[in-house]
Amino acid sequence: MNTQKTVKDYIRTIVDFPHEGILFRDVTTLFADPRGFRMAVDQMLHPYAGQRIDKVVGLEARGFILGGAVAHQLGCGFVPVRKKGKLPGAVISEEYTLEYGEAVVELHDDAITAGETVLLVDDLLATGGTAEAGIKLIERLGGQIIGCAFVIDLPDLGGRERIEALGMDVHALCAFEGL
Amino acid sequence: MNTQKTVKDYIRTIVDFPHEGILFRDVTTLFADPRGFRMAVDQMLHPYAGQRIDKVVGLEARGFILGGAVAHQLGCGFVPVRKKGKLPGAVISEEYTLEYGEAVVELHDDAITAGETVLLVDDLLATGGTAEAGIKLIERLGGQIIGCAFVIDLPDLGGRERIEALGMDVHALCAFEGL
Repeated sequence: MNTQKTVKDYIRTIVDFPHEGILFRDVTTLFADPRGFRMAVDQMLHPYAGQRIDKVVGLEARGFILGGAVAHQLGCGFVPVRKKGKLPGAVISEEYTLEYGEAVVELHDDAITAGETVLLVDDLLATGGTAEAGIKLIERLGGQIIGCAFVIDLPDLGGRERIEALGMDVHALCAFEGL
Repeated sequence: MNTQKTVKDYIRTIVDFPHEGILFRDVTTLFADPRGFRMAVDQMLHPYAGQRIDKVVGLEARGFILGGAVAHQLGCGFVPVRKKGKLPGAVISEEYTLEYGEAVVELHDDAITAGETVLLVDDLLATGGTAEAGIKLIERLGGQIIGCAFVIDLPDLGGRERIEALGMDVHALCAFEGL
């Protein structure tokens, strides 16, 4: 029955994207559904009910969709972590390792005030490389991260252990085994 | 007084970004402020009160932040228009002209059902090239666009005339004269 669909049921799997052998977990079908999208936003916030959250930080680009909605639900501000060269103001940067080579993410240096409480949001926790870079950026500005919330965890890629090892609370709405 | 700040007051201007001679209107300071962000989302929807909106379509990437929040406010689904190669499923594409060269945006071919009502959302209306490409994509799937909502209009770049010439309703929260 439709009313019993979970967040995971709304996620579509695309075979061989972006390259052969990869099962891509596609959240666009979740976000396009009114009930699915609202359920995802609500469930991302369940563990943090009653806690003060000053800023939601979303990772480019799918974390912007979710982060915008989560910040709106909370009535707080939204702050983007973007790929290098996209933010117009003065930034701080962190490098992280990709499958091939390296990438850099940036945060405006005045986007978070020391002591503000922050919820980090993204759609997917894979190796945790981008999330770790985002965490470092927030902490360099003195932000106090109360949690890192994801729609999907891919446990076989080790991201949860990596982020928890930084002392973070990790919250994911569902998990897909395998790569 | 703080309580009288308008959406425009929260927008920061960065000189010489992305290159010399450009005054970049930076909405991140608007989105980072709880009152500014909520005011922007509310005001984007004012003209459409009481109208049925099935889907909010946001243009990559700042349109995702706003579009996620607007879709959440409406309780409807969110659909992204993305740059070429980013969407994992079957897509339709539209090319548009940039200052130098061309770019392509894409939409999942099943993201909108014929007859659905759509609100197009982005942060900035400049020349209107990306918005026009987004409009074409939505109309190719039979979506019925009830409006195109932007935070900022740059009237000297002619985007409003271009989009209105397509028979669209254009709604912008504020305007900046000059380039």
